Amino acid sequence: MDEFAFIAKHLAPLAAAAPGAYGLRDDAAVLAGGLVVTVDTLVAGVHFRVDDPADTIARKVLRVNLSDLAAMGATPGHYLLSAQWPTPPTSAWIDAFTAALAADQSRFGITLAGGDTVRTPGPLAFSVTALGHVATPLRRAGARPGDDVWVSGTIGDAALGLAVLEGRLTLASGAKDLVQRYQVPEPRLALGQRLVGLAHAAMDVSDGLAADLAHLCRASGLGAEVAAERVPLSPGAAAALAEGRVDRPSLLTGGDDYELLFTAPPDRAEAVMAASAATATPVARIGRITGDACRLVDAQGGDLVLKRAGYQHF
Amino acid sequence: MDEFAFIAKHLAPLAAAAPGAYGLRDDAAVLAGGLVVTVDTLVAGVHFRVDDPADTIARKVLRVNLSDLAAMGATPGHYLLSAQWPTPPTSAWIDAFTAALAADQSRFGITLAGGDTVRTPGPLAFSVTALGHVATPLRRAGARPGDDVWVSGTIGDAALGLAVLEGRLTLASGAKDLVQRYQVPEPRLALGQRLVGLAHAAMDVSDGLAADLAHLCRASGLGAEVAAERVPLSPGAAAALAEGRVDRPSLLTGGDDYELLFTAPPDRAEAVMAASAATATPVARIGRITGDACRLVDAQGGDLVLKRAGYQHF
Repeated sequence: MDEFAFIAKHLAPLAAAAPGAYGLRDDAAVLAGGLVVTVDTLVAGVHFRVDDPADTIARKVLRVNLSDLAAMGATPGHYLLSAQWPTPPTSAWIDAFTAALAADQSRFGITLAGGDTVRTPGPLAFSVTALGHVATPLRRAGARPGDDVWVSGTIGDAALGLAVLEGRLTLASGAKDLVQRYQVPEPRLALGQRLVGLAHAAMDVSDGLAADLAHLCRASGLGAEVAAERVPLSPGAAAALAEGRVDRPSLLTGGDDYELLFTAPPDRAEAVMAASAATATPVARIGRITGDACRLVDAQGGDLVLKRAGYQHF
Repeated sequence: MDEFAFIAKHLAPLAAAAPGAYGLRDDAAVLAGGLVVTVDTLVAGVHFRVDDPADTIARKVLRVNLSDLAAMGATPGHYLLSAQWPTPPTSAWIDAFTAALAADQSRFGITLAGGDTVRTPGPLAFSVTALGHVATPLRRAGARPGDDVWVSGTIGDAALGLAVLEGRLTLASGAKDLVQRYQVPEPRLALGQRLVGLAHAAMDVSDGLAADLAHLCRASGLGAEVAAERVPLSPGAAAALAEGRVDRPSLLTGGDDYELLFTAPPDRAEAVMAASAATATPVARIGRITGDACRLVDAQGGDLVLKRAGYQHF
């Protein structure tokens, strides 16, 4: 058991009296009146880079939380921002930070409602609490045997973008788009809202597709078979793969994708495609809910060998 | 302008579209349906001591947020816990931490609903988001000329307790109670709820009575005159003062009191005393809302000379 699971195991009993906490195993909690709440802390040097621009840090800390609302099918309402500063920001930094938040507030229909500011002897860090609403939430649990497994957008870009930023990867072209995918995720809110009533299960992909598929399987108590080669890649990631600069397992365990992973019965495939078209969000059918084991299979039908199953918190 | 005010000034416009955010100047936001939300982050080495016991850390991180709910007159409902760990906790540590949270959940009627766990290269830190409900919130703004100024409990104990823990102060007796006041604040929820309809303005005292009185004055656009000698002290603080181990200004600027500071018209004094009795929460009348200046006066009626006006965030 990794350290994250160890902590979660100890905290889960504290949530036993709140049915909408879902045992702390979903992307957000759903309280009375369809109120959806979620919190994520992002730490410099862990979740973003210390020298990332102020505007991309602002967007990432907000959007990672919007992605959790998207995973529940929720409509954003308000957020709280708790900031830890090692040193006071400059005027230019805070101006860029707040201008980016203002732009995202407008774009995603969410408004700051509160927060606090503290000093820290540690790194810059931000906790965002996002609040939204949904009548009938999407859940991680709920997949049924025979469901198609779908994913939005493309997978693996953010991990490549981080590798570029860290100087572990140089690319002839396309690096800028990959870096953008690491620094500024795209929360799939419109798609998530359309999937309410269509998808049996949904979650966002933050720890790597392989790990998050396993989370969805475990929550639903079912297995899945996903074809690694059907997982959609961006042109940049496809080129890096073709040139042998990265292998497929690394793309599927990289993390920070913030795409939606969801399941729906095959007879709703057209409706899913219509939701995709209506929201201009690409989706791909990558496998099926079946059996007891949660499998990522290669072109030969064998289990894909993963070096690591997604991001470990320690 | 201190750094905290500098950051608040930049963030406030982001909250302009949310009337219940009160310009980020109140203890919590009040959203549709009387939903009260607040977040506070506590960092090891800043808001609690690195070697504080796990159970007191748990209680403090929760109770500081409950104190914000108390300041609004709200009833607690749920909370989210976002934890940053430099190293994984031991089983014994996390057991003590969660047992203390479980006890406080029971005592204050609040349930964990969500959260996350991340690693950090910095110190241990916890962000708690607390959610509650209130029909008509207490506010910092709203004091009226002629109101009495009241405070609950005793002031200055936590600052003395911290001085004891840091070896800056040794006392013949009573040190343990003062340390307890620093490590485990007592949120004045029952009193806060009773003050709805009685108090014109209320807030919790977290940055020191002097600084928080100034916040209340500024929010209400009025002045106040508070008699420093009428501010209630615990036996331990009174003894330390009598022995010259601490001066009065230090007690009034220490911070971490988590008492309620509130105003009410003189004709409600009996009702305030009844609320105090009904909730077994001592209160004291320490001054009056009057004039334009926010003054802490000494026994001679002159302005008390403060070395610092409460806790600065940088």
